[in-house]
Amino acid sequence: MLFDVVIIGAGPSGLFSAFQAGMLGMKSAIIDSLEVIGGQCAALYPEKPIYDIPAYPEIISQDLINKLVEQAAPFTPEYFLSQQLIALEDHNSFFKVTTSIGTVLQAKVVIIAAGAGAFGPNRPPLENIESYEEKSVFYLITNRNSLANKNIIIAGGGDSALDWAISLSEIANVSIVHRRNKFRAAPATVQKIHELESMNKIKLITNYQLDGLNGQNGILEEVIVADLDGNKKILKADILLPFFGLAQNLGPILNFGLNISNHHIDVTPPYFETNVKGIYAVGDVANYPGKLKLILTSFAESASALHHSYNRVFDGKALHFEYSTTKGIKN
Amino acid sequence: MLFDVVIIGAGPSGLFSAFQAGMLGMKSAIIDSLEVIGGQCAALYPEKPIYDIPAYPEIISQDLINKLVEQAAPFTPEYFLSQQLIALEDHNSFFKVTTSIGTVLQAKVVIIAAGAGAFGPNRPPLENIESYEEKSVFYLITNRNSLANKNIIIAGGGDSALDWAISLSEIANVSIVHRRNKFRAAPATVQKIHELESMNKIKLITNYQLDGLNGQNGILEEVIVADLDGNKKILKADILLPFFGLAQNLGPILNFGLNISNHHIDVTPPYFETNVKGIYAVGDVANYPGKLKLILTSFAESASALHHSYNRVFDGKALHFEYSTTKGIKN
Repeated sequence: MLFDVVIIGAGPSGLFSAFQAGMLGMKSAIIDSLEVIGGQCAALYPEKPIYDIPAYPEIISQDLINKLVEQAAPFTPEYFLSQQLIALEDHNSFFKVTTSIGTVLQAKVVIIAAGAGAFGPNRPPLENIESYEEKSVFYLITNRNSLANKNIIIAGGGDSALDWAISLSEIANVSIVHRRNKFRAAPATVQKIHELESMNKIKLITNYQLDGLNGQNGILEEVIVADLDGNKKILKADILLPFFGLAQNLGPILNFGLNISNHHIDVTPPYFETNVKGIYAVGDVANYPGKLKLILTSFAESASALHHSYNRVFDGKALHFEYSTTKGIKN
Repeated sequence: MLFDVVIIGAGPSGLFSAFQAGMLGMKSAIIDSLEVIGGQCAALYPEKPIYDIPAYPEIISQDLINKLVEQAAPFTPEYFLSQQLIALEDHNSFFKVTTSIGTVLQAKVVIIAAGAGAFGPNRPPLENIESYEEKSVFYLITNRNSLANKNIIIAGGGDSALDWAISLSEIANVSIVHRRNKFRAAPATVQKIHELESMNKIKLITNYQLDGLNGQNGILEEVIVADLDGNKKILKADILLPFFGLAQNLGPILNFGLNISNHHIDVTPPYFETNVKGIYAVGDVANYPGKLKLILTSFAESASALHHSYNRVFDGKALHFEYSTTKGIKN
């Protein structure tokens, strides 16, 4: 699919970039790893009040996202959610962007507004765990029935862990490994877990942590757990489901030949272009001397980057700059 | 009076600077030449919708000002209105700021957010007019009774000119000089003017422009007017009242030793400091390579300038930077 601008990240900086692109007559696509729009604001603290968005004495995080979506909407940016950027190829006159589910987009300009990076599961620090992933170790369950009649170890004490334990206990042998003997899940869920335990439908292995995996060719056979004193247990297991929440990381963005310092992308003010012409970075992911990590700063970075990209998008056509306030967006 | 920061200009950039100063624990004063808060937004286009304030799909200019005032209010910035900056002295550890009505403020940091400059009357290009100002030539009438029984020439064709002509015709001999024979004032006002003319209470001298002044020691004796062909008339006159609207100019700011290019103050990103340490310029008045004259850009400039000034204000105390979103302002 062809666009003028591909924006990586649907947080505040990405959304405002889509608005700014639209104001300049550019058609934009936005990619995000989350299934919802809004980045951290929506995923981590949707109800948190924010006090330093200019002209908003107070705004709830989710409301900020809603307003930014509404502001960009007249320009109909296309959203590509639940998919992560995995490849970015520079074809000189355009970039080819590929996502984790195979979406391929082309655009003359790329705006990276990826915040602290894509959200992904927290992976437990177990030797060789990668070789089991997507075969015996899953962070996300997309096919519940494939787990029927398996010996399943669920690790974690939050809602995801317990909700899946309850669900899977109906079709499989489920054990929960948790480092404490208290759970952080909703009280009703915790009560249900204890009921299932008393009926021998779920096994609780508390005060233990994951310690190692045994198996071969990605086929898990045993999960080793250990208590704080180092006492170990070996559990027979076909499947391990670690539910330790989400973490953020830049992932493949680190591999595109962009200059990176300390997990941030180096850009040059006042246009916030990276070392690759046509690729800009704005918001928390961008790094330059004097950078302030404020949402309001990212808005200005977006505006500047997109004005600067105008020539590239429109093949050198001059931008006859007007104060945007003198023209409506609905004309 | 002592402040941490003196802000020149009460437009959007100045107001957000006051908020940002407050967030950083600084006490601020704001000076503006207008009697209302809001700069151009309030004075020139209060009812105009603005489309590119982030997270406001549309906001009326005056509402933007109101929101910014409300956002800064918890930090109680002090407003010094209806007065223009006329002197700015650098005493190394602090600046001394003097206004046109004699207010004297001291602060460690000065933020110039003066937009296109202070608003002032458009002065007609007449030789030696300065020597008559405040004696026989007035752009603003503060004492109507002092004009009783005078020969008054009012120049201009807008509401101010005609309203004053009607009012002063009750106590003085009034002539209106206007370069066209149509007036731009409200229809009812124009009708009233023609009525007064037909009653010989006002004299209309249309299709003429001001051409020169005769008098001595600031005491006006004659006003010379000319038509487009250069034909002249000499009018007996004690008082000239030119009403040609408001203009903006930087005025005394040009004389403080700051580097100026093309009526803008040169600053260096990313902190937007001028060539004088401790004096910053933000918003439309500031100039640097790649500058975008957008309100949203000025917000980011303010935030950056004030964070940078923190050390100077608090004598080197380190700023333990937090995302402002993690702390409330009402604590």
